[in-house]
Amino acid sequence: MPTTAYVLIEAASDKAKNALKAITKIPGVKMAHAVTGPYDIIAFVEASDVDALGRVVLSKIRTITGVTKTLTCVAIDIR
Amino acid sequence: MPTTAYVLIEAASDKAKNALKAITKIPGVKMAHAVTGPYDIIAFVEASDVDALGRVVLSKIRTITGVTKTLTCVAIDIR
Amino acid sequence: MPTTAYVLIEAASDKAKNALKAITKIPGVKMAHAVTGPYDIIAFVEASDVDALGRVVLSKIRTITGVTKTLTCVAIDIR
Amino acid sequence: MPTTAYVLIEAASDKAKNALKAITKIPGVKMAHAVTGPYDIIAFVEASDVDALGRVVLSKIRTITGVTKTLTCVAIDIR
Amino acid sequence: MPTTAYVLIEAASDKAKNALKAITKIPGVKMAHAVTGPYDIIAFVEASDVDALGRVVLSKIRTITGVTKTLTCVAIDIR
Amino acid sequence: MPTTAYVLIEAASDKAKNALKAITKIPGVKMAHAVTGPYDIIAFVEASDVDALGRVVLSKIRTITGVTKTLTCVAIDIR
Amino acid sequence: MPTTAYVLIEAASDKAKNALKAITKIPGVKMAHAVTGPYDIIAFVEASDVDALGRVVLSKIRTITGVTKTLTCVAIDIR
Amino acid sequence: MPTTAYVLIEAASDKAKNALKAITKIPGVKMAHAVTGPYDIIAFVEASDVDALGRVVLSKIRTITGVTKTLTCVAIDIR
Amino acid sequence: MPTTAYVLIEAASDKAKNALKAITKIPGVKMAHAVTGPYDIIAFVEASDVDALGRVVLSKIRTITGVTKTLTCVAIDIR
Amino acid sequence: MPTTAYVLIEAASDKAKNALKAITKIPGVKMAHAVTGPYDIIAFVEASDVDALGRVVLSKIRTITGVTKTLTCVAIDIR
Repeated sequence: MPTTAYVLIEAASDKAKNALKAITKIPGVKMAHAVTGPYDIIAFVEASDVDALGRVVLSKIRTITGVTKTLTCVAIDIR
Repeated sequence: MPTTAYVLIEAASDKAKNALKAITKIPGVKMAHAVTGPYDIIAFVEASDVDALGRVVLSKIRTITGVTKTLTCVAIDIR
Repeated sequence: MPTTAYVLIEAASDKAKNALKAITKIPGVKMAHAVTGPYDIIAFVEASDVDALGRVVLSKIRTITGVTKTLTCVAIDIR
Repeated sequence: MPTTAYVLIEAASDKAKNALKAITKIPGVKMAHAVTGPYDIIAFVEASDVDALGRVVLSKIRTITGVTKTLTCVAIDIR
Repeated sequence: MPTTAYVLIEAASDKAKNALKAITKIPGVKMAHAVTGPYDIIAFVEASDVDALGRVVLSKIRTITGVTKTLTCVAIDIR
Repeated sequence: MPTTAYVLIEAASDKAKNALKAITKIPGVKMAHAVTGPYDIIAFVEASDVDALGRVVLSKIRTITGVTKTLTCVAIDIR
Repeated sequence: MPTTAYVLIEAASDKAKNALKAITKIPGVKMAHAVTGPYDIIAFVEASDVDALGRVVLSKIRTITGVTKTLTCVAIDIR
Repeated sequence: MPTTAYVLIEAASDKAKNALKAITKIPGVKMAHAVTGPYDIIAFVEASDVDALGRVVLSKIRTITGVTKTLTCVAIDIR
Repeated sequence: MPTTAYVLIEAASDKAKNALKAITKIPGVKMAHAVTGPYDIIAFVEASDVDALGRVVLSKIRTITGVTKTLTCVAIDIR
Repeated sequence: MPTTAYVLIEAASDKAKNALKAITKIPGVKMAHAVTGPYDIIAFVEASDVDALGRVVLSKIRTITGVTKTLTCVAIDIR
């Protein structure tokens, strides 16, 4: 079963739009939205396991121009 | 076009599990996960417009036992 | 010229709806909305001067059941 | 019915005045004030829907010189 | 030369008014105001030295009903 | 009746001393002290009304070299 | 490969000692220490996958008397 | 060589005075003061090693009536 | 008995990967992981005593390129 | 009777060591330690009165290279 996470992203004041475009194209990003509130973008990411997921965040999302901070919230199945 | 939002939810330390069960059953909640990190549950909610969305959060999610705080991040289409 | 202020209000998780109703009826409250994000309600208040404004917040808004915190941001004309 | 929001804005210490002037001229900004307290400017914005509203914030307000942070609080009708 | 301090005071939502009345009567409190913003009351206190000042805060201000938190900012002459 | 406010000021680590000197000379600043605690300087300001007060903070205090942040707490007469 | 996480735990002021004892006995908790600083206890937990890990935190750690808050930091292999 | 630490202590609004008295009597507490600012009491503690020091904080300081939070800052010799 | 600590590390958005590699090679670092949540890396460090431990953090970890902040949580044996 | 204070100091990530050396040499600094936790250095300072103490912090400690923030907690004798 794959691992999923919500990635709460802060972006530089005037670069959120381009950052969102770049995030949307990253493989594993199932959906991503600009959002109102304290975060600028929220992405829902899926990967084969938590390590692959971490690599998407660290190597892909955090290296995009304008992304200043990410907070990864890993989904857990607690049924 | 419907309005969507990520609702970041904090729950009482020992009630997150039951709160998640109740949230999952609310109409309009498209997905909801227990998550690691500073929030306890994240729900992705869809409604006909932002007012309907607000009613889901205020009348449904925030009245569930164990839910102590919610932060609604409304998705915006910025293309 | 009257003084105006935005009052950013936090409310108990399950009482925001009734608190908003009560706030809307307070004389001097020109508009009030439930809002998404870290605050629950924002009210735009007008009074004859800053003292009258303070009395609206302290004697009226803060004594409403469910209101837990208020942050008054007084508008200033800087033209 | 249009969507409205309060946009809480932080501005660079010495640029709040010019930022406010520029914000006031943006179509959709119904009112905007310099304010006392933790935020520097609060704008009340109206748009056809939440997406149009998001575009006003991201493409117009956040690209103004001196604006360093925005927090959009979308109004919801909970009657 | 006496020591002075600004005491930034938080008060329970519905008790700020009576707390202010009580604070105003404390010997050494040169002025005190209800204020807008994150604090509820600010008092300017004068005492013979920093120890006497601390006693005013701890034994007088902090024991008043409705006072929940105080932050004492001691004035220093840096000329 | 004039309007008064406490302005809580943060200053760059090595510029608080000169900033205080400059603040003390601003018309309307009734007293100003370097202080211990989370703020660096607190000024007590008086002006004819809240707009004039806002202009003192935005045009005078916030443009002084070394001032990095201000938080204006407007005094309100709640008797 | 199993999933591991650091769980940063806050405990009621006078119950940290007993909470630590109980945490140490939970299967999957590889090590746990009382610590200095803003957290009271840090536990290093191992489970078969992120869901099993989440269940340890939610069903075991968060239900222990004296545990008031947990922050789970999932380890990710980014080599 | 013994281990030392500064323990930054928050106390209930009206119990700081008695808490300080009790803290002063704890063996290993070399000095303790009521202080201005965000903390209420700061204690300088010495013990044979970091474990003994932790026991002083957890078993002695944190069990005193009125102590609500402690933050232990262990001194390190970095010469 | 050696002293151990969890070091909670924040790293520049695009340098966490290389910082982790460098941290892993530091003598005394028993394990280190990139992690999800508010911190970027958590290292578990062992040294002969608390002073040696402090030197590892200050002279080794904090001088690595990309490390912006560290929070050392010293383990204490409270049995 | 002299006035004393604990000065809680934050330092740039790689300059804490040299900053501590410089702080230790300042007249009036009775002891100073690098510490674990959210602050980097804590100094215990003694001066003839609170004004002299403020001058030590503002003119001496805050002008040292690498010192980014100070929080002065003045000791008060509340017996």
